Amino acid sequence: MLCDRRCWFMSLCLFLAATLASTTGAQSSLPQHVDSQRLQSTLTKLSEYGRNPDGGVTRLGYSETDMAAREYVIGLMKDAGLSIRIDPAGNIFGHRDGAEKLPIILFGSHIDSVVHGGNYDGDVGALGAIEVIRALNESRTPTRHPLEVVIWTNEEGNHFGIGTLGSGIAAGLIGREILDRKDDKGVTFSEWLRRYGLDPAAFGAARIAKGALAVSLELHIEQGPTLYEKGIPIGVVQGIVAVRRWVCVVSGSANHAGTTPINRRHDALVAASKDVLAVRDVVRGETGTQVGNVGMMKVEPGAPNVIPGRAEFPVELRDLNDAKVERMWDHVAERFRQTDKDEGVETHCQPTDEVNSAQSDTNVQAAIRDAAKSAGLASLDLPSFAGQDSQNIAKLAPMGMIFIPSKDGISHSPREYSSPEDIAAGAEVLYRTVLLLDQRLEP
Amino acid sequence: MLCDRRCWFMSLCLFLAATLASTTGAQSSLPQHVDSQRLQSTLTKLSEYGRNPDGGVTRLGYSETDMAAREYVIGLMKDAGLSIRIDPAGNIFGHRDGAEKLPIILFGSHIDSVVHGGNYDGDVGALGAIEVIRALNESRTPTRHPLEVVIWTNEEGNHFGIGTLGSGIAAGLIGREILDRKDDKGVTFSEWLRRYGLDPAAFGAARIAKGALAVSLELHIEQGPTLYEKGIPIGVVQGIVAVRRWVCVVSGSANHAGTTPINRRHDALVAASKDVLAVRDVVRGETGTQVGNVGMMKVEPGAPNVIPGRAEFPVELRDLNDAKVERMWDHVAERFRQTDKDEGVETHCQPTDEVNSAQSDTNVQAAIRDAAKSAGLASLDLPSFAGQDSQNIAKLAPMGMIFIPSKDGISHSPREYSSPEDIAAGAEVLYRTVLLLDQRLEP
Repeated sequence: MLCDRRCWFMSLCLFLAATLASTTGAQSSLPQHVDSQRLQSTLTKLSEYGRNPDGGVTRLGYSETDMAAREYVIGLMKDAGLSIRIDPAGNIFGHRDGAEKLPIILFGSHIDSVVHGGNYDGDVGALGAIEVIRALNESRTPTRHPLEVVIWTNEEGNHFGIGTLGSGIAAGLIGREILDRKDDKGVTFSEWLRRYGLDPAAFGAARIAKGALAVSLELHIEQGPTLYEKGIPIGVVQGIVAVRRWVCVVSGSANHAGTTPINRRHDALVAASKDVLAVRDVVRGETGTQVGNVGMMKVEPGAPNVIPGRAEFPVELRDLNDAKVERMWDHVAERFRQTDKDEGVETHCQPTDEVNSAQSDTNVQAAIRDAAKSAGLASLDLPSFAGQDSQNIAKLAPMGMIFIPSKDGISHSPREYSSPEDIAAGAEVLYRTVLLLDQRLEP
Repeated sequence: MLCDRRCWFMSLCLFLAATLASTTGAQSSLPQHVDSQRLQSTLTKLSEYGRNPDGGVTRLGYSETDMAAREYVIGLMKDAGLSIRIDPAGNIFGHRDGAEKLPIILFGSHIDSVVHGGNYDGDVGALGAIEVIRALNESRTPTRHPLEVVIWTNEEGNHFGIGTLGSGIAAGLIGREILDRKDDKGVTFSEWLRRYGLDPAAFGAARIAKGALAVSLELHIEQGPTLYEKGIPIGVVQGIVAVRRWVCVVSGSANHAGTTPINRRHDALVAASKDVLAVRDVVRGETGTQVGNVGMMKVEPGAPNVIPGRAEFPVELRDLNDAKVERMWDHVAERFRQTDKDEGVETHCQPTDEVNSAQSDTNVQAAIRDAAKSAGLASLDLPSFAGQDSQNIAKLAPMGMIFIPSKDGISHSPREYSSPEDIAAGAEVLYRTVLLLDQRLEP
């Protein structure tokens, strides 16, 4: 096939983009296939949907802003020649045929945000995936496997209060009971699906069959400072950490803060303060990258002149190794028991959340590492400490994630930022990983 | 003067009461002048004003319940032959003439309570004072000094939000600006005075002139556990402690609790937890009976998965020695600065309350000690860690307070309790102290 007018135009663009990249980018050898400027222009356009006057974006999953943004992204997917299918949960799939009758190589991310979020978390992986398709089209590269770009719905979970909702439904982890759930305006999830032009009665069909996917890939910003601070452009995600949460209540004795002698108190806040420090001590006491948090503290009765009789706080522990999280909790609980004894209080903790870790497939990790190397990019193996759609899809297929640096580790904020060079590098590694896996994966 | 019918009746009562006390009381030598049963019956009657269905009493100063209770107490005072004067702030004075032209020996307490309070804090000292007058009348004991029983208004300050309000006005510590203050229903203090039949325009006349009082005495429950636990019936109050309060704000960095490495956090709650423990360490580090409290903790943003960026808490320190409170605060502030350095946060504290200590007069303390001894009662010198009307009156005259045991140190609770024996012992010591001071005080 000869090059038509559009093809010539695109080639010119590619040349100009490559020239620009080589003069402005830190790494002169990049990008090689994806088009950084084209990718940036779609990111800029997407950032207009739900933009806040004072910066950043509020684009909650299942909202009118989300609906409008989805239309824009569906347009991009169609322009890239993908055939669109929207499942009954609202997840968008864009299909590109493969040469052989093989399971699908799936890649993508999400485009919803938190309240007052940024323009990189989700957007980079969603639009990066579409850019990969455009780059494959341009170089007329066929694949053995069919490829699908996916836009998962409501990853942040700020609407309806459930994170990774779309992918959770696709993986069969969230059932029909969600249909009757109401948002804070009393509108049910079913009603929102109808607003999206979907049929809640077909809910079951959103579930992806085992064996349908050959592999799932996701490009995402790190949301932490590690890559940014080390100056490494590519993170090979080892897996998504386990997250366990408890809510703990310390029962002491409320009393007059003047008349009760200092050594005769059973001060719930003094005990809780020891517990807060114990959580950090235990987390720091292990080698590795595990984290822990106490994010709130409620004190009763709550007056300057009354000894606290009750303190309530949540404990959160995260690590890639579920057994380590279990072990840390045992140590924390032991420390809490010691505090109870020392302070004459009683502490009871109830588990509230338990998400097991999702391990990345080792072959997929190797492919990402090789892809980065082939593009002349340094990489680092690291866990994802934030929850991701990929942790749900790991239940269905081998999974891998590519991280790029986040400036100062900031996410879920208008100050979220990843450089055009880093974004292009991530998309390029996704491009190369798709092709490597297309060759390496056994049918 | 021969004994009339009433006199004979009262003598009979006194004989029966004394017989009963000697068979039921733990200390058989007591009471000797005051009538325990008569005192108890007035306490029981007063407890009906504002009684809560589930126990205890809610009788806020300047309320309709308070108004009704005052009428009952004024009746008791009139029955005891006292001539009643109510000042423009609502404080009630009951006058008994002295034989000489001398300043007044004032004694009494308050009858208002906190929300869901008990039946002893205030009531014991108010009704104990009236019982002393009845006992003096019965034994026809004249005094050189005029005696006055006082019922201070709104000591607890739960209405209008200012503690020791009536005595504060009498001592000239609270000015006219209070007249326009509104309660939570929008009713001004002036309006409440009018409801009490008082004239707000005469406000200035509530102030007691310097020199008008020879001495001020107050019988009160300890509100702490010291006397109860040591089994000592009489406390000789050394003074009322200084109370200083600050509100402190720790500014850290809110961030993602998953993606921020554990050693890269500036966690405001971790820092505040160290500060809470520092306050106790410093208070415990001094010898003596000083106390300190952190009674609240507000954390922002306040989510299990977000590192606390801001924590706010109050610090309260109390001791009889103002200089020691100052020194403790210096040490606390030093510890806070160290925490700031270690945690990479910034803490700023603002003073919110500063009440200096009020020392009891040493001659008055000696008289109370002697009075207890003469009644065969053990006594212990100790500070009042709670605020008292007497701390205001100390600005006008030599002041002293008599404490009696509070079961388990509980106060401001329906579980507040002092035994009839301890109450009678306290009233007896008040009786004897009045007579001792009447003799000892120089004109």
